[in-house]
Amino acid sequence: MKIVIIGGVAAGAKTAAKTKRMIPDAEVHIYTKDNYVSYSACGMPYYIAGDFQDWKQLIIRSVDEFEKSGVHVHTHNLVTKILPADKKIMVKNLDNDDWQFVEYDKLVIATGAVPFIPDFANIKSKRIYTLRTLDDGISIREGMSEANHITIIGGGYIAIELIEAFVKNKKRVTLIERSQFVLSMLDEDISALVQDYILEHSDELVKIINNDSVSEIVGEDPVLDVITAKGYGFETDMVVVASGVRPVVDIAEDAGIVLGKTGAIKVNSRMETNIPDIYACGDCAEKINMVSNTPVWVPLGSTANKEGRVTAINVSGGVEDFEGVLGSAVLRYRDLNISRTGLTEKEALKLGYDTVSVMITKRDKAGYMPEVKNVTLKLIADKRSHKILGAQAIGCGDADKRVNTVSVGLLQGITVEELIDVDLTYAPPFSTSIDILISAAQILKSKLN
Amino acid sequence: MKIVIIGGVAAGAKTAAKTKRMIPDAEVHIYTKDNYVSYSACGMPYYIAGDFQDWKQLIIRSVDEFEKSGVHVHTHNLVTKILPADKKIMVKNLDNDDWQFVEYDKLVIATGAVPFIPDFANIKSKRIYTLRTLDDGISIREGMSEANHITIIGGGYIAIELIEAFVKNKKRVTLIERSQFVLSMLDEDISALVQDYILEHSDELVKIINNDSVSEIVGEDPVLDVITAKGYGFETDMVVVASGVRPVVDIAEDAGIVLGKTGAIKVNSRMETNIPDIYACGDCAEKINMVSNTPVWVPLGSTANKEGRVTAINVSGGVEDFEGVLGSAVLRYRDLNISRTGLTEKEALKLGYDTVSVMITKRDKAGYMPEVKNVTLKLIADKRSHKILGAQAIGCGDADKRVNTVSVGLLQGITVEELIDVDLTYAPPFSTSIDILISAAQILKSKLN
Repeated sequence: MKIVIIGGVAAGAKTAAKTKRMIPDAEVHIYTKDNYVSYSACGMPYYIAGDFQDWKQLIIRSVDEFEKSGVHVHTHNLVTKILPADKKIMVKNLDNDDWQFVEYDKLVIATGAVPFIPDFANIKSKRIYTLRTLDDGISIREGMSEANHITIIGGGYIAIELIEAFVKNKKRVTLIERSQFVLSMLDEDISALVQDYILEHSDELVKIINNDSVSEIVGEDPVLDVITAKGYGFETDMVVVASGVRPVVDIAEDAGIVLGKTGAIKVNSRMETNIPDIYACGDCAEKINMVSNTPVWVPLGSTANKEGRVTAINVSGGVEDFEGVLGSAVLRYRDLNISRTGLTEKEALKLGYDTVSVMITKRDKAGYMPEVKNVTLKLIADKRSHKILGAQAIGCGDADKRVNTVSVGLLQGITVEELIDVDLTYAPPFSTSIDILISAAQILKSKLN
Repeated sequence: MKIVIIGGVAAGAKTAAKTKRMIPDAEVHIYTKDNYVSYSACGMPYYIAGDFQDWKQLIIRSVDEFEKSGVHVHTHNLVTKILPADKKIMVKNLDNDDWQFVEYDKLVIATGAVPFIPDFANIKSKRIYTLRTLDDGISIREGMSEANHITIIGGGYIAIELIEAFVKNKKRVTLIERSQFVLSMLDEDISALVQDYILEHSDELVKIINNDSVSEIVGEDPVLDVITAKGYGFETDMVVVASGVRPVVDIAEDAGIVLGKTGAIKVNSRMETNIPDIYACGDCAEKINMVSNTPVWVPLGSTANKEGRVTAINVSGGVEDFEGVLGSAVLRYRDLNISRTGLTEKEALKLGYDTVSVMITKRDKAGYMPEVKNVTLKLIADKRSHKILGAQAIGCGDADKRVNTVSVGLLQGITVEELIDVDLTYAPPFSTSIDILISAAQILKSKLN
């Protein structure tokens, strides 16, 4: 039995390690064009910030450790073609440009995602970065050390984490975001507050340009000129493009593997593609949102790990299903925690739900505790079924805790009325006697009546 | 419409405030023998510790504020009898020993609980304290300031919170606990770890005597002699009896109100007793454990507040149900968070469940984050139905978050297999890519197969 895995960051590495544990006799191979496998891409902003000094800490399992466990890792090997009829892949060794065919019994596509580069660049400056691979992270930290002013294009999760990293290193930052506020994956009433917080807690180093985009980057190293669509121009020492990512599906599509309507590889709950013995998992695969039961593409490390586990079990002859995602996510900007689960109100409205929502701010702990902070929670429900659709929470207090609590409820279609009955832990250092989540549910209930 | 409420700490105060808001024309009266109403009893250990300096911060709503909102508060007024046939109560004014009858249309019993005093005391020293009312809290803080050595009898939540308070004030503490470890409401594999942590983080000020009890307290002020059942004796400056509480049900029982098998007042989901127009809520009332569907008595401020709200709605002519509790609780000892929800394994076994459990220790955040700490989680399920029965978590990391997540699942009878599907928020400052809760559920699943 020979199992070949294309890609080795999260989903691929997890599939490889678990498959080898489940069927020790199997030949398990990882092919990747990357220098590294099995690393925490999500940790790179904190490495760039200097929260820790050795990037090797991001490596979960080294190539050596994989080899010792019997998994063969082929770095610098780009898979250029899948030949399903022959159960072979075509691989190019990037070190010596040799080509070879590799046979497989089962193939796992875990090619991940790559940064989306907007169509602005008319120069290929070394000072324009993206953040995806470990090498990218190392490069940005190096580049940052020589820069005084850094431009971030895009305002998503990674962009915000990078602002934290750059401000911590006393760099001036200009961020350009197409939407009205950063974090356009949140509802505007929440993302407006996040943007305010960032600007108020940026040591006067951060400028955010909204409703605009970069049209050109010109100039000569070491100083670049950024020009926006609205005609605004400024000099910068370094640009990070963080305008989102897209799934890597080219060789899959070329091989006749069906993509979903999100553009990612369509898989069933066993992580099987439409072609026998070919699986896909991680950021290159489409997922189901369990709240709306619609296909979504949410590339996240936690999901990739879970899908890798499910893939390994199925590849190994077991039966395991991956039911989907809930749209849960969290990030930090300095002391502010920002998290969401389920659908935002705008997502729900787009899907045709008749929504009702509440947004309240309350203390996260008893008011007399010295460490008390505020949390702002938005809770969204469906007017017809009274089911909770999603939650978003931000605050310097314990916001994430409340959102995870909602996540489990979403899994089972909890209603507003049912959520009121939840018995959350209470003690003064942990919450108010009526937790903000219960208060929000009580208000939603009265809005529904 | 005249609504009379006996007791005004949490459930009583909540009932009064909400009833007045719902039916502004009603006459709402609180009768209490206490000096204060509407205060956070749970906050007293932190006041004693010196985490804040003014005990008035514990008052949620003062007597003046109640009066301004139209709720009449009668402090120093002990209700001695309920006369259901006449819809009257008998009240003794403790300031002038006057007696009076007070009529009611609806009566709410919110008499709370009182400390259980073991049968050891043969002296009535002023240096023996209990912690229940606000006055108790003020007295203990005053008494502590003159004490070098303090004895705590009992090892429950309040006892542990008091150790923190006393150690923070550099007092030597001896705690005597009947069970093998403190916190006997947790499983021993967890409570053993808590006790170890306390002893290791007590600045060498704390001694815990297990499997023993106090048989006598003798001696003359200011120094007392404590003698245990096993014959151990020592001198102490002050004793706090924290051997649990019992519900205050004497006047209810005397009036023919039915008690449940836990000894607390039996109520239905509308908080009605067996006698028309008489409700009970808060610590004096029995609750249903929603996991086992059995009557329990769990006196907690968070529950009291929820029951007060439900009582107010029903008293005001609305319809609202209180479905029960999940046995959720949390406490802190210095940096250690300790929390539980649902049934412990020993509770489940006693109820006849065939249990399977797992206990694992894992990081609460990505390993490379500077603020990473450990969490130990115990997850318990039913072998037959695969339903989760409960969870306990301890750790200097974010333990409570994982337990609250389980709480919502318990509400809907989540199975081990379903819990694996939960999409928890992930980012390096908040969790590992596979959260400890998911890891525990995955192990339980493999144990079940």
